[in-house]
Amino acid sequence: MSIITLLTDFGSSSPYPAQMKAVLLGLCRATIVDLTHDAPPHDITHAAYLLRAAAPTFPAGTIHLAVVDPGVGTTRQPLAVASGGQFFVGPDNGLLMPAARTLGQPRAFVIDLERFARRPLSSTFHGRDVFTPVAAALANGLPVEAVGPPAGALVELPWEPAARGPGWLRGRLLYCDRFGNLVTNIPGAWLEDVPRQLTLQSPRGRIPIRRGRTYADGAEGTPVVLIGSDGTAEIAAYAGPVAEAWGLEAGDELVLSFTIDP
Amino acid sequence: MSIITLLTDFGSSSPYPAQMKAVLLGLCRATIVDLTHDAPPHDITHAAYLLRAAAPTFPAGTIHLAVVDPGVGTTRQPLAVASGGQFFVGPDNGLLMPAARTLGQPRAFVIDLERFARRPLSSTFHGRDVFTPVAAALANGLPVEAVGPPAGALVELPWEPAARGPGWLRGRLLYCDRFGNLVTNIPGAWLEDVPRQLTLQSPRGRIPIRRGRTYADGAEGTPVVLIGSDGTAEIAAYAGPVAEAWGLEAGDELVLSFTIDP
Amino acid sequence: MSIITLLTDFGSSSPYPAQMKAVLLGLCRATIVDLTHDAPPHDITHAAYLLRAAAPTFPAGTIHLAVVDPGVGTTRQPLAVASGGQFFVGPDNGLLMPAARTLGQPRAFVIDLERFARRPLSSTFHGRDVFTPVAAALANGLPVEAVGPPAGALVELPWEPAARGPGWLRGRLLYCDRFGNLVTNIPGAWLEDVPRQLTLQSPRGRIPIRRGRTYADGAEGTPVVLIGSDGTAEIAAYAGPVAEAWGLEAGDELVLSFTIDP
Repeated sequence: MSIITLLTDFGSSSPYPAQMKAVLLGLCRATIVDLTHDAPPHDITHAAYLLRAAAPTFPAGTIHLAVVDPGVGTTRQPLAVASGGQFFVGPDNGLLMPAARTLGQPRAFVIDLERFARRPLSSTFHGRDVFTPVAAALANGLPVEAVGPPAGALVELPWEPAARGPGWLRGRLLYCDRFGNLVTNIPGAWLEDVPRQLTLQSPRGRIPIRRGRTYADGAEGTPVVLIGSDGTAEIAAYAGPVAEAWGLEAGDELVLSFTIDP
Repeated sequence: MSIITLLTDFGSSSPYPAQMKAVLLGLCRATIVDLTHDAPPHDITHAAYLLRAAAPTFPAGTIHLAVVDPGVGTTRQPLAVASGGQFFVGPDNGLLMPAARTLGQPRAFVIDLERFARRPLSSTFHGRDVFTPVAAALANGLPVEAVGPPAGALVELPWEPAARGPGWLRGRLLYCDRFGNLVTNIPGAWLEDVPRQLTLQSPRGRIPIRRGRTYADGAEGTPVVLIGSDGTAEIAAYAGPVAEAWGLEAGDELVLSFTIDP
Repeated sequence: MSIITLLTDFGSSSPYPAQMKAVLLGLCRATIVDLTHDAPPHDITHAAYLLRAAAPTFPAGTIHLAVVDPGVGTTRQPLAVASGGQFFVGPDNGLLMPAARTLGQPRAFVIDLERFARRPLSSTFHGRDVFTPVAAALANGLPVEAVGPPAGALVELPWEPAARGPGWLRGRLLYCDRFGNLVTNIPGAWLEDVPRQLTLQSPRGRIPIRRGRTYADGAEGTPVVLIGSDGTAEIAAYAGPVAEAWGLEAGDELVLSFTIDP
């Protein structure tokens, strides 16, 4: 039985996720896993991070149905993307690509609305009327090439890679979790080459920070940077929402600087 | 395998939905779909809207277990209702009927507590102790007529239909979603007969509004009214919570007025 | 097919619960039930109450995966516990034991990380990397004794029992639900021996309270104490969040006092 994940910004108290599941269950047998329905409204970058964080943990064959879609009903393309043995279905607005690129070399196809959309096709809920039927068709064994013609150039998020040089590592704040931990795009392995005492520079100023291993290492009050569960450098906050206290936001540039051993 | 949906106001961070699922899974094999557990506490009208919005999307045979039940343990009747090939289980307080009437001609039965309630029967959690065992019994093939005697007059919500006349459409605000879109009970098809420039009258005043097709049509700042995903007229707010800004609330009367072509 | 419940403080809008489900579904066939992912961050006592409230409703064989784990990656022991035919997997910080003791005589084992942890093993997400693989192994039929050596002394929460004497019942506020109802650890059966008019003493003062049976008994404005759905005395608030109005918090001592019939 296929696994189908659902990621939306519809809100878990709205009737929309249940409508998508109703359509899915009417069309295929699948194990449905909610990634979340409480992604911040219209925040494509945030949702793209969630999808990229979750997808690599799923087994081959998983179908990710991801709908944060401010352009619903306009000319933005509806996509099905295969990468690394998994599938992504959703709008061509950048949402799917960071996850798809993390898994492998994406192949993208434009969904043939004539063939796959439910009737009547709404102008406001392609999550239910377009993307869900395609996810169900993939779960039923449809080859991804059959959803429609190959896509041309795709919309991409400005997802700049981290960089490093003598005495510094530079990246961006991708995600702030509920505990106040700040996930960055700096490869965790880079932390292995730096000294224990560091300085974190952000748009809000500079603070001393220590290299650590566990969240509890931050219990004494000094913030620590450690290798997070997705393999990137993470600024840990044992005692609550650091991001808020520091005024940091997703997208902010962060630099970890240090003195090089002579 | 039957689909059983769950709709409550218990809160998704409470232990109560899990208790209902535990009872269900101990009694039957079913695919459980959460509609939501975060309906506003004791707001029967809101939950009735959610159920009415979601139910038509589900396949025949689906059992909807809906519990917003301020009168739990009192003399209010426990019901099982069949309509249009689906089933509704919950309290007789109006919650079930808008959905049931949307699907067809409802047939309602009063649950025989002696036969179906769990022991010990609490006075405070019939969701777990009464409605869930009945939903499980229906999933196991019990004919709905066997849950108990036919119900007499049922509690109904004051669910007044929309109306229209020369130069106006009148209805009510049923639901405000997370994006700020306002769902009304005005049939979407009525929008096809009106001009592009309209005036929206509400208890908070009058504002100009345009007829549109997609949420993005509101991107320029003017609010638009469009045909929403459930087929009713919806006032769309591309740039955030209109309801809050306008001070509108579910239940408010809304009138769309316009100049008739001479 | 085994039932596996998930209880965490990771947040339902985070990618972490989906990662745990991905690992589970890659390793075993199971019916997954979310208890909640919105337990207050790092609040072990609160989550222990949720688990204790939910577990007794589940059928034998259920595996409860519970991760509120501020000490992740430190020397705190990873546990698998069997009790009353059910299983509990999570950290040795007190979280599992109230539920396990409610079901029977717990037998606890320390998880062998060498054998069960995923590679690479993170220092920050043992919910995904340690506890989930063990839950999957139990679902696949592994005897609990095979997860590792028997555990010695376990961390226990200060979970003091209720007490009573002539003219008083004393206990603690365990949980405040979304409706404002206050769940205590005072056995509900004790209420059967007390008069209808009582006084509730709390750290915030004294108020008159009546013995009732249903939530609606409080509709007239006077608070009522009744037997809640888990069999304990519960202070009911028909008209909203009493705890907030009274300033009460989980952990507060509550005394119900009354005049003894001469």
